[in-house]
Amino acid sequence: MPKSAYEQAGVSIDRGNQAVERIKSMVKKMGVQEIGKFGGFFPLKGNLRHPILVSSADGVGTKLKLAFLMGVHDTVGRDLVNHCVNDILVYGAKPLFFLDYLASGRVEPKVVGEVVSGVLDGCLENETVLLGGETAEMPGFYRDGEYDIAGFIVGIVGKANVVDGKAIRRGDLLVGLPSSGLHTNGYSLARHIVFEKLHLKVSSKVSELELSVGEELLRVHRSYLKPVKPLLEQGLLKGMAHITGGGLLENVPRILPEAVSVAIEKTWPVPPLFQFLVQAGSVSEAERYRVFNMGIGMVLVIDPKKLSRVEAALEKAGEEHFLIGQVTENRGRERVRIG
Amino acid sequence: MPKSAYEQAGVSIDRGNQAVERIKSMVKKMGVQEIGKFGGFFPLKGNLRHPILVSSADGVGTKLKLAFLMGVHDTVGRDLVNHCVNDILVYGAKPLFFLDYLASGRVEPKVVGEVVSGVLDGCLENETVLLGGETAEMPGFYRDGEYDIAGFIVGIVGKANVVDGKAIRRGDLLVGLPSSGLHTNGYSLARHIVFEKLHLKVSSKVSELELSVGEELLRVHRSYLKPVKPLLEQGLLKGMAHITGGGLLENVPRILPEAVSVAIEKTWPVPPLFQFLVQAGSVSEAERYRVFNMGIGMVLVIDPKKLSRVEAALEKAGEEHFLIGQVTENRGRERVRIG
Repeated sequence: MPKSAYEQAGVSIDRGNQAVERIKSMVKKMGVQEIGKFGGFFPLKGNLRHPILVSSADGVGTKLKLAFLMGVHDTVGRDLVNHCVNDILVYGAKPLFFLDYLASGRVEPKVVGEVVSGVLDGCLENETVLLGGETAEMPGFYRDGEYDIAGFIVGIVGKANVVDGKAIRRGDLLVGLPSSGLHTNGYSLARHIVFEKLHLKVSSKVSELELSVGEELLRVHRSYLKPVKPLLEQGLLKGMAHITGGGLLENVPRILPEAVSVAIEKTWPVPPLFQFLVQAGSVSEAERYRVFNMGIGMVLVIDPKKLSRVEAALEKAGEEHFLIGQVTENRGRERVRIG
Repeated sequence: MPKSAYEQAGVSIDRGNQAVERIKSMVKKMGVQEIGKFGGFFPLKGNLRHPILVSSADGVGTKLKLAFLMGVHDTVGRDLVNHCVNDILVYGAKPLFFLDYLASGRVEPKVVGEVVSGVLDGCLENETVLLGGETAEMPGFYRDGEYDIAGFIVGIVGKANVVDGKAIRRGDLLVGLPSSGLHTNGYSLARHIVFEKLHLKVSSKVSELELSVGEELLRVHRSYLKPVKPLLEQGLLKGMAHITGGGLLENVPRILPEAVSVAIEKTWPVPPLFQFLVQAGSVSEAERYRVFNMGIGMVLVIDPKKLSRVEAALEKAGEEHFLIGQVTENRGRERVRIG
């Protein structure tokens, strides 16, 4: 078949449609039909009083480079969905629907299919639906075999159930939930340390780590929906912070009222991956808690009187957890002291 | 100040925060306060019966290359918002809120500020709010000075007011609303023709076009919200198609019931830009209506009995319009005949 003028310019509508068909057939299995049209429909049901939509947009950052290096494309979609779910969960919102944006220089239906299957896995894991998305072919923007993805989530919470940190007081406790790895932050530095400084490959094994460095770095950003949902339903949480870019140092202050600061104690076991990275990269104390999550992916702020109920609910959900600090009076600029 | 390990790896949290501050101050003027936290809040008001959320994700595609070449960064955000608004408008939905994703190799606060100011202009123009967004710094992903953007929109429509094309019958009329240029589609081909085949520069003037080729190509993708809103409110529309990638040939069929096809007649004046591109690029008849909008950015499908009311409302809104065809019986694979 002769190439059309458009194909000569590097864009194939047929290849794009092929990818869309692949996605459609996957999405159909989820019971959502509207993909491939202009927009997706989501009927609002239930009788929530004063419903508030909570929405967030995010990407996976340079973790994608790991996926490219390893040729593994079906996990970054889960990273993306889980990251977005956590970002609205911190306000008490449960996900309604998700949309993705996937851009590459040349649409490879196989790779697109793998990426979107990861997105769908993430949606299923979080009991949400993929309502739509855009697959963009942009010649000259991305290197061969590379792509970027962005995700967009909409959730809902009743006004009375919003968790916004306003009730946080001196004496409240900080409970940390474990991360599954780097999640989606700190990859530029991690790659610099592992590949440029240490000259390792993704398949390299080091004594400190269970899996290959590539596999360790690509571990999926986990969702906290399942363990946190029962806590929300019992009204046990005053505030939550998802530990993403900026680490504990920048994410915890986002939810603190003016009157308070927090004192974090290093009570939790820092996972081997972080120990390895900060040592090999000589990453300073101050920087490591800003760039990496250091093993804590979600921080819950609770009334000390509710600690036993919180612990019981987390244990019931099979969720490990650490008492990592408490709320203090405001100490000025240093809102988070890690001692 | 010495560079941190993270900065050496190419990522600056400070530079990112600087960009976020710039965006925050712009957003504050719009009366939305939640940007920079994890997610944005949108209280659902009103008493719409059976409300349906309609959502869409989109990008600007390789039109961005034009923005880079011209060093103009404050229009692509308007392209993005308007494109998304049109994509949900076709179902009768009015925008509630918008989020953006902006990724570059290195966050330049000035450029980010310009891009986001365009997004904000787009939001204002469409009476919607920027509820949040992500600004990602991804070293090694994008060329210096380049970036990609994606937009996500959520709108709402009452179930009884959904425009879905189901009522379209043989004999219905197609009304075309003019595009303002290429909108956001066909740029890879247009750039190939203009810059590679003709060796023109963005500043080049050609006799066929009013402005420089760069300015002509960068014209903002228009929003159809203002002219279409009164038609929706009067219940005058059976279907709408936003003419994006795939052109009239692929977008009109998206809303047609199985029983019908459409016959389009070239009754409208094809704007000089399209005449210039198809001639210079020897773009075949079949391909031009698939790659370019050819001057029609939105197609309305109406009952012929309502034509005079539709025309009166469009005239009142100051909107040019063309009777471009009619609905016929289903002609098999050829759902759109352009004669």
